[in-house]
Formats: sequence, C-alpha cells, structure tokens
Amino acid sequence: MNRLNASLQSIKPIPKNFKNDIQNHLNSLTKPIGSLGKLEDMAMQYCLTTNTTNPKLEKKRIVLFAGDHGVTAEGVSAFPKEVTVQMVYNILGGGAAISVLAKHIGADLKVVDVGVDGTLEHPELLSYKVKSGTDNMAIGTAMTVDETVQAIEVGIKLAENAKADGINILGTGEMGIGNTTSASALFATLLPCSVEKITGRGTGINDDQLQNKIAIIKKVLDVNKNNLTTPLNTLAAIGGLEIAGIVGLIIGAASNQIPIVVDGFISSAAALVACKMNSEINDYLFYSHKSAEKGHKTFYSLFNVEPTIDLNMRLGEGTGAALTISLIEASVKIYNEMATFDSAGVSNND
Amino acid sequence: MNRLNASLQSIKPIPKNFKNDIQNHLNSLTKPIGSLGKLEDMAMQYCLTTNTTNPKLEKKRIVLFAGDHGVTAEGVSAFPKEVTVQMVYNILGGGAAISVLAKHIGADLKVVDVGVDGTLEHPELLSYKVKSGTDNMAIGTAMTVDETVQAIEVGIKLAENAKADGINILGTGEMGIGNTTSASALFATLLPCSVEKITGRGTGINDDQLQNKIAIIKKVLDVNKNNLTTPLNTLAAIGGLEIAGIVGLIIGAASNQIPIVVDGFISSAAALVACKMNSEINDYLFYSHKSAEKGHKTFYSLFNVEPTIDLNMRLGEGTGAALTISLIEASVKIYNEMATFDSAGVSNND
Repeated sequence: MNRLNASLQSIKPIPKNFKNDIQNHLNSLTKPIGSLGKLEDMAMQYCLTTNTTNPKLEKKRIVLFAGDHGVTAEGVSAFPKEVTVQMVYNILGGGAAISVLAKHIGADLKVVDVGVDGTLEHPELLSYKVKSGTDNMAIGTAMTVDETVQAIEVGIKLAENAKADGINILGTGEMGIGNTTSASALFATLLPCSVEKITGRGTGINDDQLQNKIAIIKKVLDVNKNNLTTPLNTLAAIGGLEIAGIVGLIIGAASNQIPIVVDGFISSAAALVACKMNSEINDYLFYSHKSAEKGHKTFYSLFNVEPTIDLNMRLGEGTGAALTISLIEASVKIYNEMATFDSAGVSNND
Repeated sequence: MNRLNASLQSIKPIPKNFKNDIQNHLNSLTKPIGSLGKLEDMAMQYCLTTNTTNPKLEKKRIVLFAGDHGVTAEGVSAFPKEVTVQMVYNILGGGAAISVLAKHIGADLKVVDVGVDGTLEHPELLSYKVKSGTDNMAIGTAMTVDETVQAIEVGIKLAENAKADGINILGTGEMGIGNTTSASALFATLLPCSVEKITGRGTGINDDQLQNKIAIIKKVLDVNKNNLTTPLNTLAAIGGLEIAGIVGLIIGAASNQIPIVVDGFISSAAALVACKMNSEINDYLFYSHKSAEKGHKTFYSLFNVEPTIDLNMRLGEGTGAALTISLIEASVKIYNEMATFDSAGVSNND
C-alpha cells in the first residue's frame, strides 16, 4: 500500500511550459502546418510526457499480465479457463499474435503471471502470482483489497524495472479467459453506464450466452454493491489480477514519466481505474485502438478520449498497443529527422 | 500506347479458388475467429493478389512521382510552384516526411521526375520527364493524349522494374504543387460528384482562396467539357503528369500481380482513373488512409471502398501508404508466424 500511495502521489502534471517550443518545431518542418495530423499530436504528447524537446524513442516494451477469473464458472466465456495457461505458453513460445507483433515493431515482450490458475514454468516468465485466479465475483468479491494492492504493486515494480532498463515507451497487454466480464463490470460502475451498453461478445459468445453474461454481470454488481466505494475497492470486488497488474503498470509508468500505450477493452478498464485514482495519469496515456468489442465505443465516448486506429480488432494481448507504438515511433522520427523549411531551402507559404 | 493496352489487357481477376484455404488457415491460428479484424482481411487480400497461400513480404518500395501544374497560375495553391523542385531535393536528401517514414518501415523510395518544371540533377533521381509541367487546364487541356500515355508508361515501366527487383509490395506517392486541384477535377468528372463536395483546402488555403479554387475547377471542367470522353482523355485534359505516372504504376502493379498501396487524395484520383480503365484493378489495391482533405471522404463513400487508417493526415508524398505497408507486413507475419491451435496445444472453442 505504501508503494501504491507513494507512486500515486509522485505523479506530476505533464509540463505545459514548452508546448509552444514543440509546436514551433513541428511547424518549422517541411510540410504544411498540421498536415501530419495525429502523428503531430502524438509527437507533441510524447515530448510532453517525457518532459523534453529532444525526444528519444529507442527501447520499447510490452508487458502482458496473465490471470484467471473465478467468474468463468458462470459460463461467461466462449473458451474454457485452461486456455489461459495454454496461451501463456503459446505467447512465451512465440506463436501468439502479440509474440508476432511485438517482434514486428522491435519491442521486447514481458509475460507476467500475476494470477493464473495453474502451474507455469518457463525461463522467460515473470512469476509474481498473487493467487491462483480471482474468486467468483458472482458470489462475493473477486479479491481482497490486500491481494489487489499486491497485484497493483507488481505492475508498479515492473514499470520501475522498465525505467531502470532504459525503456522509452511501454504498452499494456493481458491474457485471461473471462476478463471482458470483469472489464465490463468495471466500466458499468466507474464510467458509469448500463450493463447492456458495455457488455459484448468477448472471444465470441452467441446471443443466449450474451444474455447470460449480462445477467451475470448484473448479479456481480448486485452482490458487490456495498463494496464499490472507491476505485481500489471496486477493482478488488469486480476486477481481475491481470487488470490490477495493468493498473499498477500505468501508475508506475506515469510516476516515472514513461509514456504508456493502452491496448484494448480490458486495458482501457485498467486505465479507467488508474485515472480514477489520479486524474493526472490520463495525460501519460496513448489510447491505441478501438476494439470491435461492443462496449469499447461506449468507453471512448463517455470517458471522452480517442483511439488512434480502428482495425476492427478484438483480441487484446497488447496487439493494438503494439501497432500503435510503431505509429508513435514514426511520429518521434518525424519530429527528430525531418528537415526544416530553413535547413532544406524550401519556400514557406508565409 | 501499345505498352498501356498490353498491360491493361494482361490484368487477370484475382483468384478465388483458394480463398477457403486461406480462410481456414487464418481460422486455425491461436485467436478467436476473426478477432484480428482488418489484419486478417489484409492478409487475405495479400495472398489473393500475389496468388499464393504462402505469402512473402520482404521487399517494399514506394514510388513517388513529381510533376508541376500549369493551373497554379490561377492561384489555386497555398505554396508557390517552385516548391515542387525544392521538395524533390528535400525528399532525395532524406528530409521530407516520406523520406523518414519510408526508412521507418524499411522500404526503399524511388523518386521520379515525370514532369517537374525545372532542372533537377541528383544521382538518385529517376529522370523520365515527359514535359515541364502541365499546361494551364483553365484555358485548354493539361496534356495531349500522347504525353499522357508517355507518363502512364513511365509508371508501367517502373512497376516492371519493381517486379524484376523482387519487390513484394508497392506504395504510391506524389509531389506536385497544385495537384489537389487536378485530383478534385478528376473526381468530380469520374465519380462523378459536385465540385463543391470534392474540393478542399489542399496544403492550406483560406476561405476566399477555396472559393477561387472551386470557381477555377468549374472553369476547367467547362473549358474541357468536350474532352472528358474516356478515362484516358479525361486524364489528359484535367490530370497531371505525376497522376498519370501513378495510374501507370497501378496498372503495371496489377498486371504483374504486385499488391499496391494507394496513398491519399491524389493517389486515389489516380486509382479511380486506373479502375475506370479496367475494373479488375481494384482488387489489387490497398487503400491506405482517409485524408483530412475534405473530398477524400466523398471518394471513399461514392467509390464504395474503405481506408485502412484515419490519422487526420493530408500531406501526400506516400506518407499514408508507408504507414499502411507496415500494417500489411504485420498482417502477413500474423499469417505466416502465428501458431495454430493444434501446433500450440491450445483448446479451441468448438
């Protein structure tokens, strides 16, 4: 709890005082003003979050948290729970989508067991298991507050490790069968919005299963209605261990001034929890893609933030974050490598 | 003309017979079916255009055509015409946005003078100048049909060179002060649509200049109304040399089964001309981004195709194509490198 509180308190507002300098530099580059659109916005945000007019983006890392969900006992997912363990091995073995995309963008990929229900052994796995999956939140809280803080502090520690390793940008990722149920419950509580508006098909359930999922989430919110008092208590009651890990990574990234790219639906729920703990955090976040998971549109609209891309993806793992990190890298190269009108001897239009 | 006709006639419909094989492979990969959205669509299209179930995407090339526009005499652009020459040197020198982004994605960049009004000398420049800029289309045709065919055949030749060089994917790019005027006139004629609906601010003109630009385009269409009979004649009358070069590159790419990524507003006008010459061409095209140039939305809507990304960019040069090529490369890696449910020992949901 000390580490969590210390991190939350150490987060500074992003600087505003050299915003004009950054803008002037962007405007001096050989292109019509503003014509690189979001690439220019991303370069600006990257400079501000890293507190410099001379940005560097060399080392990229995606941190993927894995955890299981007791609520899968209620039949909320299209895939059986054992898939979490199988997919963790697949990710570590290089066969998952995020394995391929992290390599594509030149990022390293850290896989963290923060709460998988099963024994995992792999030399590359970071083992910080808090417990073997959450409890079934349809009949009680998913985690205790202590367990939740522990999982958050795993994320904070990994952000600090990233800082020590000279990582310039982080991306979030997750694996956990059942976690769209938990994320939907968090959104419904914290945005807030109706369960119907935020709940989608996850990995691919049918109409009947979707109705069941909605009913289960309503039951979860009812069973836990007295526990949804603070963002931390809410996360403990209806969150997940991997979601708590991401919350911690985000808090740790912001407190260490490392820009962090929020992946999809699940990661956005974690971002929402983190921002509810300290609203300054939002300025350190790059939202990556709009997921095809139905409720993601609701999140973007109600939380008033914008995704960078929309490729109709709904896989999670960090896949949207990976593709977006490459765009942010492009934006920083634009900032650093383009010629100015003066240096290139190009006539400006003023 | 022989080369143009031969190329147009050699374009085959993309194969459909192994579409199921590709889909089955995509469905066997360790992810919920369809969960990688457009990445899966792009992998599918890449396989079909290259006529294989074992796609390879290693060598990437962006071909940027430069040309000047006589219609700049009418005050249609925010930048003076000499900027075309200056920017060609800047691109070749590595200081332009496309120089930076081509390097970022690991593509080579070929710069082609197909019609710049000025003397250009650079060891890396491909000099295929047809004429020193188009004539002012507000008082007559921009080019003769012969000149137009010559410029198209430069593009076809460069696609053939790409094939010989083992290039797996092409991207289009352009530089030419005044070319949104020409592109808007082409769209208005060939989509067709009203001049108001397609005409935007290009590099950044003000309200008065925009009204002037619209009036000039209407004059262009009126002066040339008897010349807008075929796609080729239309391109000659109201097109541009660099646009004709892109038309040729697209035709040559399709006839050589090289997938080609259409950049922004200008390149889309070239794609439209090419598709009007042979409608099979459209299946070989990847549309990259939705430009912030107002009329691009009109093009996508009326031509019934979809952009891959929307980053609010409006620079041209091939910048949107470059970012999209990287996404297509990611999609091919997903297809080639991901594990299957069987190979990874992951339980499927069926």
